[in-house]
Amino acid sequence: MTDTSTICALATPGTGAIAVIRVSGPDAIGITEKIFLPAAKGKILGDQPPNTIHHGTIRDGNEVVDDVLVSLFRAPHSYTGENSIEISCHGSPYIEQKILELLVSHGAVPAKPGEFTRRAFLNGKMDLSQAEAVADLIAAETKGAHKVALQQLRGGFSDRLKSLREQLLHFISLIELELDFSEEDVEFADRKQLVGLVNEIKQLISGLINSFQLGNVLKNGVPVAIIGRPNVGKSTLLNAILNEERAIVSEIAGTTRDSIEDTINLEGISFRFIDTAGIRETADTIENLGIRRTYQKIEQASIVLLLTEASDPVETIRRTLEAIRQQLSGSDKHLVVVLNKSDRVSGKHISTPEKAIQLREHEHIISLSAEKRENIDRLTGLLLEIVNIGSLKHQDVVISNIRHYNALKSASESLERVSEGLVSDLPTDLLAQDIREVLHYLGEITGEVTTDEILGNIFKNFCIGK
Amino acid sequence: MTDTSTICALATPGTGAIAVIRVSGPDAIGITEKIFLPAAKGKILGDQPPNTIHHGTIRDGNEVVDDVLVSLFRAPHSYTGENSIEISCHGSPYIEQKILELLVSHGAVPAKPGEFTRRAFLNGKMDLSQAEAVADLIAAETKGAHKVALQQLRGGFSDRLKSLREQLLHFISLIELELDFSEEDVEFADRKQLVGLVNEIKQLISGLINSFQLGNVLKNGVPVAIIGRPNVGKSTLLNAILNEERAIVSEIAGTTRDSIEDTINLEGISFRFIDTAGIRETADTIENLGIRRTYQKIEQASIVLLLTEASDPVETIRRTLEAIRQQLSGSDKHLVVVLNKSDRVSGKHISTPEKAIQLREHEHIISLSAEKRENIDRLTGLLLEIVNIGSLKHQDVVISNIRHYNALKSASESLERVSEGLVSDLPTDLLAQDIREVLHYLGEITGEVTTDEILGNIFKNFCIGK
Repeated sequence: MTDTSTICALATPGTGAIAVIRVSGPDAIGITEKIFLPAAKGKILGDQPPNTIHHGTIRDGNEVVDDVLVSLFRAPHSYTGENSIEISCHGSPYIEQKILELLVSHGAVPAKPGEFTRRAFLNGKMDLSQAEAVADLIAAETKGAHKVALQQLRGGFSDRLKSLREQLLHFISLIELELDFSEEDVEFADRKQLVGLVNEIKQLISGLINSFQLGNVLKNGVPVAIIGRPNVGKSTLLNAILNEERAIVSEIAGTTRDSIEDTINLEGISFRFIDTAGIRETADTIENLGIRRTYQKIEQASIVLLLTEASDPVETIRRTLEAIRQQLSGSDKHLVVVLNKSDRVSGKHISTPEKAIQLREHEHIISLSAEKRENIDRLTGLLLEIVNIGSLKHQDVVISNIRHYNALKSASESLERVSEGLVSDLPTDLLAQDIREVLHYLGEITGEVTTDEILGNIFKNFCIGK
Repeated sequence: MTDTSTICALATPGTGAIAVIRVSGPDAIGITEKIFLPAAKGKILGDQPPNTIHHGTIRDGNEVVDDVLVSLFRAPHSYTGENSIEISCHGSPYIEQKILELLVSHGAVPAKPGEFTRRAFLNGKMDLSQAEAVADLIAAETKGAHKVALQQLRGGFSDRLKSLREQLLHFISLIELELDFSEEDVEFADRKQLVGLVNEIKQLISGLINSFQLGNVLKNGVPVAIIGRPNVGKSTLLNAILNEERAIVSEIAGTTRDSIEDTINLEGISFRFIDTAGIRETADTIENLGIRRTYQKIEQASIVLLLTEASDPVETIRRTLEAIRQQLSGSDKHLVVVLNKSDRVSGKHISTPEKAIQLREHEHIISLSAEKRENIDRLTGLLLEIVNIGSLKHQDVVISNIRHYNALKSASESLERVSEGLVSDLPTDLLAQDIREVLHYLGEITGEVTTDEILGNIFKNFCIGK
């Protein structure tokens, strides 16, 4: 199943102090020897012990390309499980390209996206859900996303899933043995123990399935739509929230965080604010406006902020609210009415809409002043409360991958049939079939059951060099 | 002179498969030990031999931050000459930031730009011109720039300069001894040998000074101004040249070359085409146009391409040429008249302007068709001929740094006075003073003579992590 080619790729992006080029495969050391001259006279790279670093030059014939450090790893004790080399060179695009060209001209092939990790999976260095976590970990920009990815990389739920699957495999072998002896009506597999195991798996799976919503929030952030007429203070509000965040983020020079417009990180959760420039009039004419586009944006959101001014007539707010309610009906999206510019009205007026508007489930109302930065913390607190960050603390294992979610759902349905079968004394061959299905779906998650297509889909989204 | 602090910085940019964090200083290993738990039980990082790699986890208390590889280097056998650690982690901005925060919280300080290389210089791992070459090497985007930077990094001219300087130091000590015995009219320093040494230094220095123009071309590229009225085919010409280049550049997936608009790489030399959108009319009205801006662009160029059409009346071309000649007079810029759209005129007409226009020194004329890609190679060949790429092959040592150029010029002037002094039997104390000046300027290049200000100026332009 493993590949006999030796692959190479740049593992660091762009121009920087250091660049790292990875080489992995049976000829990784041999190919590197052809282009690397150790600084120490007479040193032979191939004779060096594993996990050591060697100084020298990369050469194109007699021409020196760069002074480098070469790290040497030997199978199976490397990332991929193969012989591997990491060349640490100066981070110049010219040098990177030149070294890759030299490696290729001596027999290495350029790695495909995710191919190092794919090999790590195929060589048993990690299971499939761990391999998937590598990409998530690199993409993680918040504490929450990092936590979910790292837990998955470190075998979080897959260890337990694998162990339960193995126990189930043991049962199926006994049950299939029964089928061989079907004339004799023997029972090798203890049905009581099987019921216990099925219940244990059910409990784990249902916990994982329930964790998906939270996992998804942690991994992908929370989409929030802000609705409101122009000049009601949308960008002032975003800036005010951003400012709240900035105050608690410590910055170390050299680690530039890519600024993503309108994405705000609160306590490790990212909130993505979706631009809804649709509603250009007051609610009086809301029906007349082409706001279908706005409603589409609302569709994508988990939380809708209806931004109004504290001084708006209650009736106007109520009508806008009603229009949005119709749009949201049937969904479990949260709706937050934000009464902005609360500093411009008297205390008495502020409380009017808050009192006058009857809130339903999943609805909230808050007064604040984006401009004066007043009560911004009430809004951020509410957002965090809605996504229920608290539940993360109780939940030690969380899934965030839609592929895992779907496989768990399918496994759960098959498990339900196994349970029913056990109660209704289903013929052993049918029971065996349902158990096989459970095994299949659980195996898909960790990669015991896989196809080139599944692997292709997973690794095509990796970056090259990983 | 060396620093007792331990510094840390990210040495790779942005999000990628791998990120490398560097730590250097007396506590590099100790600080890393506080946040790194080796995977092998009982392993103590501080007890490990140098140039080894260790797998484990970075921890914030009990919380795992990432699975990493830690490379260990011990003074003086490291880049900086100090104890050093390189942490190879997943290339996620969150993880990078977190590990840097942990290092800082355990006593490391964030490195300033170029501080690792500055320490390498201060610890005698490289001289100043080599340190400067590190930044040039990283920035090198062409074969030519790479060659110049690498040669300088590997001690190209500074080794020879240092050896000559040491010989001169020997002489000055003898000469100063003479001054102590001035009453006795002795001569410890052999004047003949001194003349020989001075001539040797002169020869080296004058070679280096002469190489600066070429070095500058290799390092910074050649600025080319294209002048011509709109629609004369400027962007078609650029694309045609670019196409010529693309055909000879092999691309390996994963090494994205930042595309720099209007910069074209020919045989390792980059030509930067300066946009001159100034001339919007034919030459008849050239005086009437606000083309001062165009002339300013011409000022910055080494080569001026006057783009016209082959079918333009000779008289028009001649008048435009004359206007530009006036602008260029006194400079040694090259002027190339390009007769574009040569495919649209009959063979007879093409040759008319080529024959009719009398060229002066540094002037060239070429017919081509940018659209049909005809004779583009004649133009690129001419451009390369003008920058005299051939001379690179004969010139083994090239300088490209304006600081070195200025120091060499000053050293050269002082050397001239030393020569004259030797001929005219200048009093020994005055001769000694001139020699001291030569020593000073040569020492500035390699860093034997330096100040905090010089170092500050050099390293402030480095990236952090280098």
